[in-house]
Formats: sequence, structure tokens, C-alpha cells
Amino acid sequence: MTTSVTPLSALSADELAARLTTVRAAYDELKARGLKLDLTRGKPGADQLDLSDALLGLPSSYRDRSGTDVRNYGGLEGLLELREIFADLLGVDVANVVCGGNSSLTMMHQVITAMLLKGGPDSPRPWSQEPVVKFVCPVPGYDRHFTMLAELGIEMVTVPMNADGPDVAAVRALVADDPSVKGMWIVPTYANPTGAVCSAEVAAELMAMPTAAPDFRILWDNAYAVHHLTDDEAKSADALGLAAASGHPNRPIMFASTSKITFAGAGVAALAASPENKAWYLQRLSFAAIGPDKVNHLRHVEFFGDADGVRAHMRKHRDLIAPKFAAVEEALSSRLGGLGIAEWTAPAGGYFVNLDVLDGTASRVVQLAKEAGIALTPAGSAFPHGDDPNDRNIRLAPTFPVLDEVQAAMAGVAVCVELAALEQLTA
Amino acid sequence: MTTSVTPLSALSADELAARLTTVRAAYDELKARGLKLDLTRGKPGADQLDLSDALLGLPSSYRDRSGTDVRNYGGLEGLLELREIFADLLGVDVANVVCGGNSSLTMMHQVITAMLLKGGPDSPRPWSQEPVVKFVCPVPGYDRHFTMLAELGIEMVTVPMNADGPDVAAVRALVADDPSVKGMWIVPTYANPTGAVCSAEVAAELMAMPTAAPDFRILWDNAYAVHHLTDDEAKSADALGLAAASGHPNRPIMFASTSKITFAGAGVAALAASPENKAWYLQRLSFAAIGPDKVNHLRHVEFFGDADGVRAHMRKHRDLIAPKFAAVEEALSSRLGGLGIAEWTAPAGGYFVNLDVLDGTASRVVQLAKEAGIALTPAGSAFPHGDDPNDRNIRLAPTFPVLDEVQAAMAGVAVCVELAALEQLTA
Repeated sequence: MTTSVTPLSALSADELAARLTTVRAAYDELKARGLKLDLTRGKPGADQLDLSDALLGLPSSYRDRSGTDVRNYGGLEGLLELREIFADLLGVDVANVVCGGNSSLTMMHQVITAMLLKGGPDSPRPWSQEPVVKFVCPVPGYDRHFTMLAELGIEMVTVPMNADGPDVAAVRALVADDPSVKGMWIVPTYANPTGAVCSAEVAAELMAMPTAAPDFRILWDNAYAVHHLTDDEAKSADALGLAAASGHPNRPIMFASTSKITFAGAGVAALAASPENKAWYLQRLSFAAIGPDKVNHLRHVEFFGDADGVRAHMRKHRDLIAPKFAAVEEALSSRLGGLGIAEWTAPAGGYFVNLDVLDGTASRVVQLAKEAGIALTPAGSAFPHGDDPNDRNIRLAPTFPVLDEVQAAMAGVAVCVELAALEQLTA
Repeated sequence: MTTSVTPLSALSADELAARLTTVRAAYDELKARGLKLDLTRGKPGADQLDLSDALLGLPSSYRDRSGTDVRNYGGLEGLLELREIFADLLGVDVANVVCGGNSSLTMMHQVITAMLLKGGPDSPRPWSQEPVVKFVCPVPGYDRHFTMLAELGIEMVTVPMNADGPDVAAVRALVADDPSVKGMWIVPTYANPTGAVCSAEVAAELMAMPTAAPDFRILWDNAYAVHHLTDDEAKSADALGLAAASGHPNRPIMFASTSKITFAGAGVAALAASPENKAWYLQRLSFAAIGPDKVNHLRHVEFFGDADGVRAHMRKHRDLIAPKFAAVEEALSSRLGGLGIAEWTAPAGGYFVNLDVLDGTASRVVQLAKEAGIALTPAGSAFPHGDDPNDRNIRLAPTFPVLDEVQAAMAGVAVCVELAALEQLTA
């Protein structure tokens, strides 16, 4: 239906009306197909999970390198050999790393609730005793980061997420004088949903900037540290090193997991932090757990061997999912290119494509898609409280469906984007 | 050395002095043996862990009964077939059950921190906004229950743990008029450390009693529900049913796990609660996790088959550990019986023997044992803040050492108990 690359804004009222008729017909055809497709969540596809099926028969032993019986209680910081793998992947010292259960989200929640109930090593008082606690949230961002804060009563103030990371000037302005601003989220590498990679320069500024709160925390969710889609493999900034060099060693706490490396629901998560933060975290954890699932730690160690084993494994993921991202790009550029009604990212890694449609039409696009059997993440979900002030942002997650489905879904999404735009332009 | 059954209190000063000399010599011999034994923690022995080694090669599939791919994200309440097993074992409806990660302690901590930060469905406000929050703690009890409360700033008020459960009159008196008393711990079956089993009558009173706090919670830690040591298998009281019948459905929250059934560090934990509590818990959990390790759930389902599979498995544990408990009984009765300086339990299940020595000597016994190379749990650890007001309670954990070591350690402990008593009686 995109036989022209004339921007829609350049069309006359008659031309727009004619085009609306054409696109509406295309949409009706789409609906008539009775699709049932889902681009909502960043879940690995079954073929990706298959890559790790050897885990189902592991471990072959129940002793770690030190001879400890991993079946029994204990070992709160996790298996040393697994901590070594995460340390290598995250570019930190193994002494900074703790390996936990199957969810880095849980580790983030543990950190925030402990800051609320106990405060950190540098807190004047527990955060729950402050009149107000605020977090800086780069947007668009990860919906679960924002819903966690909302659940815990933490206010969110937004800053733009740029191509090289959060808008540092905007962050500086928020944190410099307001001691109630206690923290900040960032997905530094292949951010959810924009794919942005935080540059070393931006990271250095974030770690060095003055903050009114002495216990300001940057929750550095490096969920996609090794999830490259191209040969241009981004290197994550050295958050711990930069923070220590700036005299703020306790500012960043890193998180990562193998959820999108091995099994999404049965992987292992890790946290990395300064010695003081790590001791603080383990102390809190010691009242809530006797130790992580060390059998699963050993299972992963045997499966990977070492960090290079992880990197080799990630190239197999790339081979499976890069074609899906290419299909998204191909559908959007062939059908919407030049119309001036949408912009989208071509991420070099991660799990998402960020699609910005004509202002005020994102909700309508999602509704149209839903009625045509294509599930999209709710419009606004990449913003605190689900509120996209421009109603233009849509997060596309192409990994879970098979390639044919991605192609079919994206062809349909393109129709919906254009139809919603035409509806608005002709209204 | 116990050639007589005359109580020590009936001996003359000269007889006591002579006996002190004899027992001190026995203790010096003990020390000279250079033992290195440990009766501190309720950990399964390696032979018990071996019973579950088939888990290391499971699961054989990655689909649950409904066809869901357990490798991927999701399924916050856990695998239905595992929930069915726990429901059967705990005597509750499967609709009440949530299966989680590897630690029931973590689920208890989640519940308490959520009550602190959010409050329950029946809370006037979050507990952290109350001036004071108190818990009723039957003593002696489980040290980790108490340290968790201390960490979270919750005050502890104690009641005696009787043979049929907590002293109900004492509990009633604490909860009736004081709205700051928000909760209570109980290990209902084969309690840690006394082995007491809460009777149906006591349970009914606890569930029915009036409480000033509308959101009073009984954390029903049924860690040893199926951990029988004799043919006289205790049946846990129906806490959820009794509470619902009394009009307090949200009062109890049950916890259990397979930590002392399969692998201590790599098992699965469960929670059971009223529909309202369960919905509340899952809502809180949804902000902190995407789902439990369902592969480990399926691994356990395949291993057990059903609840009867768990029961059959527990009989194998009993065969391994009952002789160790018999060795404790034999050492204590043969060496201390009739001396009037110690009382101890003969539990029909669970993981501990509760040893009460002469008032004021428990710390000394633990010190003497330590100097002789026998590690015992610190005196007082079964009391809030480690403070046993009578300094008489010692928790013995005989499962982890092999039988020979239990025998050697207990012979030594008996010497220490008598020496400490004689030191005091001759002081």
C-alpha cells in the first residue's frame, strides 16, 4: 500500500481521503485473516531455549571446584566459578559479584526494599522514613522497573533516553539539589526498548555528578550486556570502576542474568557492587535466605565452561533472532518509509525495536492491531504509570514468535500505523 | 562415668568434689582426643542427599501437564502438579497453594516485608507506619525466625512452647488488647527445637482467639510436616480450615519446602493461604519476579510422581536419621539419666533434640564442648536476641554428622553437661 514515498503531510485532503479508503480496505482484509499473533513480551523463542537443553541433564557432579557439596545449604554469595563467569562478562572483579536465584528483577527488588526498610551504608535513615523518595527514570524504559517503583510508593521523574544513554544534563538538574531523589534506573547496554548503549562518557558523568542525596543509587540493569545482534559488539561502560574513581563507589549496583542466555525462567542472576554495598546486601540477604540454588549454579558452570562459552552461546542466539529483527526493519521501511508518520530503531543488540508513531496515535495503533489479532504491548507501557505524554511510543518484541509470524505481524502493524495516522490527519 | 543414678543434688560436698575430679579427668581425656565434630545446624547428611540424586538428571521433558514450556518465563504461582503435591501434604486445597523458589525462609521474609511496606488486605496501614510492631514468639524456637524479626525492627514477646504447642493462655493475654501485636511464629509439627506438635485444639484456639490487631498473622512454618521419625506420624492441624471456620481466614499463612526432603539448597518452597492472602501475595510478588524456576518444579514432580511418592521418600530419610536420634537418646540417658542435671526431648520427628541443662550452665557447656572440638549451636540461640533467661537451653542437631560422629560427639556433650553442673554445684 506504500506505493509512494510522499510524506502524508504533503498530501491534499482529497489524496488523504482516498488513501484512507485504500488503507481501511487493507485493514479490513487484515482483520478478515483472523490472525493470532503476539509481539508483546521480550521472551526467547522455543528455538533459543533449545540451545540450552543440555542443561536438563546437568550437573554431572554435585561438587564445586572447592569440593563443596552443592546439594546442601549455604554459600550465600554463590558458586565462585559462576561468579567468575559473570565477573568476566560484566568487566568487574569477582570479589564484587554475588550470584543468586533465577531472577535479577528479584535482586533489584531486594535492594530497593532493603533501602526502604533499612537504608544503605551511607543513608541518613531508611528511605521509608523520608517524606518522599524519587527515582530518575530515563524514558522510554523498562515497564517492570517503573511498576516496581509505583508499587513501593516511589515517585518517578523522567529524563529523555538518548542514543548514548540518559540525558545527563537533565539528570544533573534533578539530582543536584533535591535530596529526595535517591536513585535512578538505567539499562546501559541495548536498552529496553530503544536499544541505546550508554557511552563511557555518559556513564562517567553519571557516576561523578554531584547528588544531594548521599545514598544516591544507580541501578545498572545490564540485562543485555552480551546480547549482540551485529558484529559491532557494544562494550558496557565500567560503572563500578568509574564510580570508585569518582569517589562514589556505592553509587552503582549492577544486575544481570542468564534469563535470555539459557532458560528464561530457570537461569541464574547476579549482582555486582562495591565491597561495602556487597557486604550490606549479603547481610540483608542472610536474614532471608540460607543460600542460592547452587545446583543450578553448577549446572550453568558445567554448561558454559567459562565466559567465552557464554559468548559463543550468544552467537547462536544471534543467528536465530537477527533475522527476526531484520524482518521488523524490512516491514517498517518498505511499508512506512518516507511517509513521515513513524520512526523506529535498528538496534545492534537486546530484545526490542522502539517504534514511535504519529503523536496521539499509539493507543489507536495498539487497539487496531488488537482487533486484527495482533497483540502489542499496551501503548505507554515504557513510561511511568503507563503514561506516554505524546501517545506515540510502541515497544515491539520480535523474539518469541517464529519468523513467519513476525513478518505477518509486522505487515499488519504497518497497516495499523498508517491507518491510525490517516484517521488523525483526516479528522 | 555415670555409675550411679543418685541425683547430684543428693551428693555431699565431698562426694561432689570427688566426682568433679573424675569428670574433669574424663573431660581432659576428651580434649586430648582432638575431635572435630559439629552438631550445630539442621542440615541433611550426605547420605540423605544421595537419596535424591536422580534429580540431577531430570527433568526428562520441558513441558508440564498443560503443555506449557517450563523453560520460559511466567507462571507466578508455580506448576499446578507441584502445587497439588504440596496441597496433599499440607492438607489444604490446591487453590490455596503457591510454589516458589528454593527457600521457604525467603517466602516468609517476602510476606513480612510486604506487610511492613504495603500492609495486608486487612491492615489499617502498612506495619512500617505503626509506632511499634510486635510478634509473639514461642520459646525455645527457630533462631532464623527471631533474627529476621530483629533485622526488621519487630519487637519479640515470648510465650512458652508446650508439648502440645504454644501456651494459648499466654498468647491470648498478649494479643487481646494490644493492637501492636501483629503476628506470631509457630512451627506446628515437630517444632524446632523441641519437637512439639501443635494439637488440633491449640491450633483451633490460636485461629479463633480475639486479637486487637485486625491484620494479625500466624506464620505457620510447617517445615517438618512429613519428617516423621517413628510410626506415630503426627498429622498437622488444619490451620487454614480452622481459621476460616472462626471467621479469620487471613490469619494463618503456611510455609513448607522440600529443603529437608530433596536437596537442602536446591529444593522448592511453598506457601498456602486464604484466597485473599494468596491474591495479595501474588500481587506483591508480581512486582518482584516473573515466575519461579519451573524447570526445578517439573524436576521435583517427575522425581516424586505424587504426594505418596514424597511420603515413601521420607521413610528412606527416617531409616537414615532415626539411628542418629537413637544415639543421642542413648548417650544422654546412659550418661546423664537420673543425675537430675538435664532434661531432653525424644522427638517423633523433625531435626532436633532439645537439651535443657542445669540453669546457668548452658553457655559453659557449649564453651567446654567447643574447647573439646565439638561445635554446638550457641547457647540461647533458640531465644530472641540469643537471650535464654535461664541459660539452660541447647539445641542438638544430629542429622549432618555420620552415626559414629554423633555417638562420639554426644558422649562428649554428656561429659561437658556434667562437668558444667559439677562446677556450678561446687562453686
